[in-house]
Amino acid sequence: MKSIEGDEISGMEKYYRINLINSLVGFKSLNLLGTASTDGVTNLCIISSAFHLGASPPLLGMIIRPEREHNDTLRNIRSTGQYTLNNVLPGWYTQAHQTSASYPSGVSEFDVCGFKKKYIDGFKAPFVGQSTVGVGLELREIIDIEINGTTIVIGEVIQILTGDGVISEDGFVDHTKAETMTVAGLDSYYLPRLVGRLAYAKPGIEPHLLKDNADYRI
Amino acid sequence: MKSIEGDEISGMEKYYRINLINSLVGFKSLNLLGTASTDGVTNLCIISSAFHLGASPPLLGMIIRPEREHNDTLRNIRSTGQYTLNNVLPGWYTQAHQTSASYPSGVSEFDVCGFKKKYIDGFKAPFVGQSTVGVGLELREIIDIEINGTTIVIGEVIQILTGDGVISEDGFVDHTKAETMTVAGLDSYYLPRLVGRLAYAKPGIEPHLLKDNADYRI
Repeated sequence: MKSIEGDEISGMEKYYRINLINSLVGFKSLNLLGTASTDGVTNLCIISSAFHLGASPPLLGMIIRPEREHNDTLRNIRSTGQYTLNNVLPGWYTQAHQTSASYPSGVSEFDVCGFKKKYIDGFKAPFVGQSTVGVGLELREIIDIEINGTTIVIGEVIQILTGDGVISEDGFVDHTKAETMTVAGLDSYYLPRLVGRLAYAKPGIEPHLLKDNADYRI
Repeated sequence: MKSIEGDEISGMEKYYRINLINSLVGFKSLNLLGTASTDGVTNLCIISSAFHLGASPPLLGMIIRPEREHNDTLRNIRSTGQYTLNNVLPGWYTQAHQTSASYPSGVSEFDVCGFKKKYIDGFKAPFVGQSTVGVGLELREIIDIEINGTTIVIGEVIQILTGDGVISEDGFVDHTKAETMTVAGLDSYYLPRLVGRLAYAKPGIEPHLLKDNADYRI
């Protein structure tokens, strides 16, 4: 067992610390964040900070880091009030990673990284044509975190696009069928395999697999 | 392609909507959150909302839902200012899931779900003895989200415990070696396999694998 204390962390070499702290929480949700300016110039960047905030109303949160601001993302979200989150698949995850490169303002990562724009009537932000799960969100709240200059963006889900058969009978999005990837740290991409889907936990009852779990097992 | 609009979401059957919205972002970080009251009564609950907020200072965030409050977690964090996040392994993920059951206040999920408490000198909250990655945090900020009554808890990493060989040469936590699991939705547990670790992305340079990637490939 290795033990690291607080003052060792602050004394670490910068990139060692970035890799370490970024990978501490484990596997993270992986999404391409699509926006457009009021002039219709599109922007796409990969994020690993989207989180579920609540189902009623249906809310997702995400973190925007200060260095991302010059990439137009936050400005587009503020000005149009809409954005999309799209899953990442193994066939083109290297292209998704490439959207993290610092392209100049006004250059669309959809175009330079090879992504198809998909528009839905009445929704300003573009979806990723290659994705099998797309979520359209409307901005609800922006929270500035003073302690480190990051921004928490909270949006309400107003549009969901999925591949055929991806949503199970009980509403669960089957990310194995969708071929959704996950990421650890800044740069390591993974494909998960199901170990088990468990029944709702109650005190005094042994944890057990859901009845229909056989469909999902690896 | 299936398309769902906002008003269809609000009209959905409750558990269908909970399953759907909870699983939209893809795979989520999976951790056991350990706390203790000022009297030393311990508490453990499974969470899938921990996120990386920044490396300098080293900050992680997480969402605490309103119904969790009666589980003592938030009260313990407020009163002691410390908590731990611990990864979940396939050998005992069903026990980890069982911590989500509504045990009465004062009952320790460490004891009823079979987890070993591990204490570090000078740190009040217990780590999970069976985990291979443990993070000790000190409370920095609590943000109440009025829109749905949830709470964002932000803490600074002041202690890291890992199994031998889990931290790579460049600081990256190798969650394949650590056997860390991930979760989708409320109840589906997965084990990821590495597809590739990519080099830092720059405009005009083709995305490529890190040189030492061969060690990690599946």
